[in-house]
Amino acid sequence: MALQNHLSTAIASSSSAFLAPSNLGSSRASNASVPAKKTGAVRCVAVPHEEKTTYKTKVSRNANMAKLQAGYLFPEIARRKATHLQKYPDAKVISLGIGDTTEPIPDVITSGMAKRSYALSTLEGYSGYGAEQGEKPLRAAIASTFYRDLGIGEEDIFVSDGAKCDISRLQVAFGSHVTMAVQDPSYPAYVDSSVIMGQTGLFQEDIGKYAKIEYMKCTPENGFFPDLSTVARTDIIFFCSPNNPTGSAATREQLKRLVKFAKDNGSIIVYDSAYALYVSDDNPRSIFEIPGAKEVALETSSFSKYAGFTGVRLGWTVVPKELLFSDGFPVAKDFSRIVCTCFNGASNIAQAGGLACLSPEGLSAMREVIGFYKENTEIIMDTFSSLGFKVYGGKNAPYVWVHFPGRSSWDVFSEILEKTHVVTTPGSGFGPGGEGFVRVSAFGHRDNILEACRRFKQLYK
Amino acid sequence: MALQNHLSTAIASSSSAFLAPSNLGSSRASNASVPAKKTGAVRCVAVPHEEKTTYKTKVSRNANMAKLQAGYLFPEIARRKATHLQKYPDAKVISLGIGDTTEPIPDVITSGMAKRSYALSTLEGYSGYGAEQGEKPLRAAIASTFYRDLGIGEEDIFVSDGAKCDISRLQVAFGSHVTMAVQDPSYPAYVDSSVIMGQTGLFQEDIGKYAKIEYMKCTPENGFFPDLSTVARTDIIFFCSPNNPTGSAATREQLKRLVKFAKDNGSIIVYDSAYALYVSDDNPRSIFEIPGAKEVALETSSFSKYAGFTGVRLGWTVVPKELLFSDGFPVAKDFSRIVCTCFNGASNIAQAGGLACLSPEGLSAMREVIGFYKENTEIIMDTFSSLGFKVYGGKNAPYVWVHFPGRSSWDVFSEILEKTHVVTTPGSGFGPGGEGFVRVSAFGHRDNILEACRRFKQLYK
Repeated sequence: MALQNHLSTAIASSSSAFLAPSNLGSSRASNASVPAKKTGAVRCVAVPHEEKTTYKTKVSRNANMAKLQAGYLFPEIARRKATHLQKYPDAKVISLGIGDTTEPIPDVITSGMAKRSYALSTLEGYSGYGAEQGEKPLRAAIASTFYRDLGIGEEDIFVSDGAKCDISRLQVAFGSHVTMAVQDPSYPAYVDSSVIMGQTGLFQEDIGKYAKIEYMKCTPENGFFPDLSTVARTDIIFFCSPNNPTGSAATREQLKRLVKFAKDNGSIIVYDSAYALYVSDDNPRSIFEIPGAKEVALETSSFSKYAGFTGVRLGWTVVPKELLFSDGFPVAKDFSRIVCTCFNGASNIAQAGGLACLSPEGLSAMREVIGFYKENTEIIMDTFSSLGFKVYGGKNAPYVWVHFPGRSSWDVFSEILEKTHVVTTPGSGFGPGGEGFVRVSAFGHRDNILEACRRFKQLYK
Repeated sequence: MALQNHLSTAIASSSSAFLAPSNLGSSRASNASVPAKKTGAVRCVAVPHEEKTTYKTKVSRNANMAKLQAGYLFPEIARRKATHLQKYPDAKVISLGIGDTTEPIPDVITSGMAKRSYALSTLEGYSGYGAEQGEKPLRAAIASTFYRDLGIGEEDIFVSDGAKCDISRLQVAFGSHVTMAVQDPSYPAYVDSSVIMGQTGLFQEDIGKYAKIEYMKCTPENGFFPDLSTVARTDIIFFCSPNNPTGSAATREQLKRLVKFAKDNGSIIVYDSAYALYVSDDNPRSIFEIPGAKEVALETSSFSKYAGFTGVRLGWTVVPKELLFSDGFPVAKDFSRIVCTCFNGASNIAQAGGLACLSPEGLSAMREVIGFYKENTEIIMDTFSSLGFKVYGGKNAPYVWVHFPGRSSWDVFSEILEKTHVVTTPGSGFGPGGEGFVRVSAFGHRDNILEACRRFKQLYK
């Protein structure tokens, strides 16, 4: 058609003018009121000069951002690893640090994602914006696989691009006025997102804590479950079980006490069950196994550590319709509004992967992967035990929590990195309660785990 | 190995206990201190009863969430469409409303994503956590494709799961103390995210505006570019060009005035260029074409409307290292901290798709898709023009902005839906400045566009 040709040409020329850098420069120059050369001179000066720029806006920096200590823990670990590699360019560095998965994703799952990708090139298979809360079949599969018999329906499931992202969206929904409790040690995203939202005071160097956060100490002495009789009432209680970093899983009795504690205080529990499938014994895999939990808890979880989705990005959060703010407004309604306004749903391809994970073949494939990592865990635990260290966790989680009494976590981290070229994570990075411990991740290829353990034995024999 | 077998069995049994709902119930019951039947009775009561629960937590609802008016615009449109379908179950409803893409994604792009999916099942091709800011090759390709000769480097590019998500992350980085200006009408995510972060006052029913937001009126009278002499100074200025919903693109001269205005006031421009590739004339495709913009502006963009990635989820934000807060702290450093703490990077499969989009074949495939939608736009514009309506936009954007002088946008929306079964978007949904207008999206299959135009001609002939 004439129209079609006419327009196609128009687009082709205009877009190519935009997209082809060579044409771009000239086309822009020809339309810039300043001469092309000058534009070039102004726009393309070398970086050193750029950094000398003295112009500042009049926008003051967010004071909450300024409260944050150093960088986020895991990028910090990555930086130290990079520095080490510069120092020892030939070192065979093994990373048991940030808890990143290493094993290939089972075919049955990647095939599901590849098929969805190809389908997006067909009229029947194409899909654009999905429901921000996730595709109905996936929400239903998550509800029936993980929460059947627990009174959780697909409408309570919010599919996301990961538990970490949902934690921040929950903080945005809660706002800056709420108070917060965390296990000490705990996954740093809870505290950092709380600081960013302005829920806390300043960082107190002397005790290594932020003001206005309740740190619930979890140590070998209390079996890594806080003494609730000493915990102050807060609006929100972050609780992760099986725990990152200590690797310990709370028992049914302990979780009943936690739910009662929340109910007595009118608190909301944000329960992180991202490692639930690593539980080997009869400890609960979901907070919703505890009677009454739906009125005081929501739960966030992830495919990352089950299917190797750390890069694919897929998780979910359960917000029961029974969970209400003090005025009776459902927490789920505000969270849904946040999901609709600040998020646009997880990638449809990742969601197809999630659906494949929950097929019978996908579930047994995930069990295989989890089983492999649990074997790694046992190898690491045996190694440190044989060296006379007190080791915790491991049984119900992919993390081994090794005690170095009286020593600084960062010193031990550096010693291990310097002498064995193995990256771990310093326990104090998870809070002052982690001081004296190092977290060793079981995510790694088997030969790397075995080699790392050989090196540990040489260093600490 | 014995170890392997031993553990595999352990996992299989424990996991199957978790994953198989039937076993689950019993295994849980056997470990619950309350009798199984009672647990069942308590946990599995029917939903009606559950909803009668009167327990409320003592956590007060976020007052900022309570300020939000109704639902987010586009889910609201979807609800009205669903209601209409219930009323007319046999109606062939055509949606030109929420601006969702409809054409299949070109093979060259989906193949790239499928290949990446399959590769995740191989040792060499597997990848876990990526850099939160995006994969280096994609950051480099975005910089060289869209910003070459503009002094923007790959280190200034932050890859994301979409511009909408980045807008909220930017708001979290800015915090609650900043003041905000938006075009009126404008994409609702700017205002709603500002309300959620507590940057605004209450909604003022009488004028349809939130207190403390500066609404920059954009009408046919001022050529859809605000009269900056009447605009109050704010910290942040959201500016979208080509504009959603009006479809108008700012000229180079206008953007120079905007940059000067920001510089004079020490403001930061958040420039939304999600429709830049729809520009047919010589208007700028990036704010960074304007000399000096890097010191006062950042830019957010997306693959959604170029490659049909509304469901795949991939975008980016450019935060130049030259952009500084009043204390000299780089905005990019705080944004990077937010990206590391509240986000974990876009899906690696979506990023492979983005890289395919920016290959020579991908670029020409995107041009084809954009050209197709621009033909749709011309058909819609011709239709309303022939009916005697004043139509705006279209030329540089996939949106046609139709004027219905003296009428309520929602009334016109309802009239069109009721009488033609075509879903549009009421202009007032984008702000009070949109009252009396309706936005017609050009995203649709050709036959649907032609059929919708036939129905418009019948209704308004």
